[in-house]
Amino acid sequence: MIYSLPHKVMIQEVGPRDGLQIEAKILSLSEKLELIESLMDAGLREIEVGSFVNPRAVPQMADSEDLIRLLPDRPGVNYRALWLNDKGLARAIGSGRIAVDGKLQITASNAFTLRNFKKTLDEAVTAMPEWISMYQEAGIKTWALGVQAAFGCNFEGDVRPADVVALIARVELLMNESGNQLKHLRLADTMGWANPIQVKRLVGLVRERWPNLKIRLHLHDTRGLAIANALAGMELGVDEFDAAIGGLGGCPFAGNPGSAGNICTEDLVFLCNEIGVETGIDLDKLITSAALAERLVERPLPGKLAKSRGLQHMRH
Amino acid sequence: MIYSLPHKVMIQEVGPRDGLQIEAKILSLSEKLELIESLMDAGLREIEVGSFVNPRAVPQMADSEDLIRLLPDRPGVNYRALWLNDKGLARAIGSGRIAVDGKLQITASNAFTLRNFKKTLDEAVTAMPEWISMYQEAGIKTWALGVQAAFGCNFEGDVRPADVVALIARVELLMNESGNQLKHLRLADTMGWANPIQVKRLVGLVRERWPNLKIRLHLHDTRGLAIANALAGMELGVDEFDAAIGGLGGCPFAGNPGSAGNICTEDLVFLCNEIGVETGIDLDKLITSAALAERLVERPLPGKLAKSRGLQHMRH
Repeated sequence: MIYSLPHKVMIQEVGPRDGLQIEAKILSLSEKLELIESLMDAGLREIEVGSFVNPRAVPQMADSEDLIRLLPDRPGVNYRALWLNDKGLARAIGSGRIAVDGKLQITASNAFTLRNFKKTLDEAVTAMPEWISMYQEAGIKTWALGVQAAFGCNFEGDVRPADVVALIARVELLMNESGNQLKHLRLADTMGWANPIQVKRLVGLVRERWPNLKIRLHLHDTRGLAIANALAGMELGVDEFDAAIGGLGGCPFAGNPGSAGNICTEDLVFLCNEIGVETGIDLDKLITSAALAERLVERPLPGKLAKSRGLQHMRH
Repeated sequence: MIYSLPHKVMIQEVGPRDGLQIEAKILSLSEKLELIESLMDAGLREIEVGSFVNPRAVPQMADSEDLIRLLPDRPGVNYRALWLNDKGLARAIGSGRIAVDGKLQITASNAFTLRNFKKTLDEAVTAMPEWISMYQEAGIKTWALGVQAAFGCNFEGDVRPADVVALIARVELLMNESGNQLKHLRLADTMGWANPIQVKRLVGLVRERWPNLKIRLHLHDTRGLAIANALAGMELGVDEFDAAIGGLGGCPFAGNPGSAGNICTEDLVFLCNEIGVETGIDLDKLITSAALAERLVERPLPGKLAKSRGLQHMRH
């Protein structure tokens, strides 16, 4: 198979949820709204805005329901959220403002699954039909799968691409048994273990086995390789990415409090611009959003482009 | 031509010169020595330690001669320095401690050359035989060329790969006319304009025309693409890089004072480790050097790896 760079990529902005959730400073509702509006003004159309989880576990997300109620209606914009159980799903549906997909989540690490979800990876796979039923009861088809720690895990160590493929196949089988089809796969480098060659190996194996599966990469810049990893994905045709404005986020696992967070939206958009891949995003406005994010969280963010202002005004 | 990743790369550490020169805090001689010793302990063998230029123009480098006198003798280590005229060259030779190569420097931008050297690019090329004679009088063969702004320029805008190739060819002709051979080419992304596709285009053109020329990349992370650019170079077989510990350095041009600096040595070594390219450098010790650099310059440095401590202790 020969792949080439995609003509266009879709970038989902995860800063207001995945990015902000680790921030010590709790943003007010109006601050969160200001950030989300600024991101939409820059052209972002898929925005993760909050999570329906235990507010005590993630204080920054305690006001998600209030925030979602206040979000403006913008044509073409989908607001996204996280849920981890049936109550969370019910709250997401109940909000009436969240684009609810039938998505499953699994972590490609037994050690991480044991630690965070108090079950083995096998038990987590075995529990998938409950999730599928939960969606079914809400009238939602299950068609998406997210694989966390798909490139390595602070608790498990290296994660082999072949094992990830086998895990996806197990979940797909369970989906098929209930009449659902796997159509979308999100591979997450949750703890920043990926390198560009590994991205190509895993994406290559997945595309060989599931040529029509839509793949999204969720990358973290914990060790400085996120942009190179994104490019490796694009070189195999990947055209969906999660990213966080300013590089918001972090690695709350294994005591790396100073680590960089999610791949930085404006740095990723800059890469795309330079190599001729469309994003539909206005880089000048995005740099304004990054400055706003930095002001709101009251700490320097790791993104590079906002500090150097890009090349768009220096070309003749 | 098919290229593959090199088996091993040579990384020249430029932090103590190119990196430190923009720092507001002037380091003492003992601080500079401590940093250089730490870098050698980590395994770096080519280290740019100072410059023989006007001390008023670059206060941080005013003590280069004293520093060089105090450097320890380490087998296999080459100390490197910068000079910009015959006086600087004489001082470098006179120090008796600097590895002096017959290297020419040109900037692939007429606007930059006019601004910084008060001559046109044509005049700068025409002056090359004076440099060659200068080396000849010192008994040194001219065999290396450095091209600054080889990927773009804040004052000129985009720089076309074909124009860079033509510029190299003009200088090579002048070298040949005086009985010298071009054997080493350093392509510098002085102002952080390069992207991975452009790196492949320029390196590809150069390798097509000069298959035996040794190529080094000097990359800046001004806009976050340095690691992806380095990988693009390695994918075309480039096996020499400049890098600065902690990502020291900056972009003193065009008013981007907060910009990231040179490609970060430890992030580059981490990339190499992960993709199976040898560097001969101990990553743990290098992280210690990065912490030292940050302490000495008294500001956070942009490198990512030193904050997350790598993966070397999390593998099972």
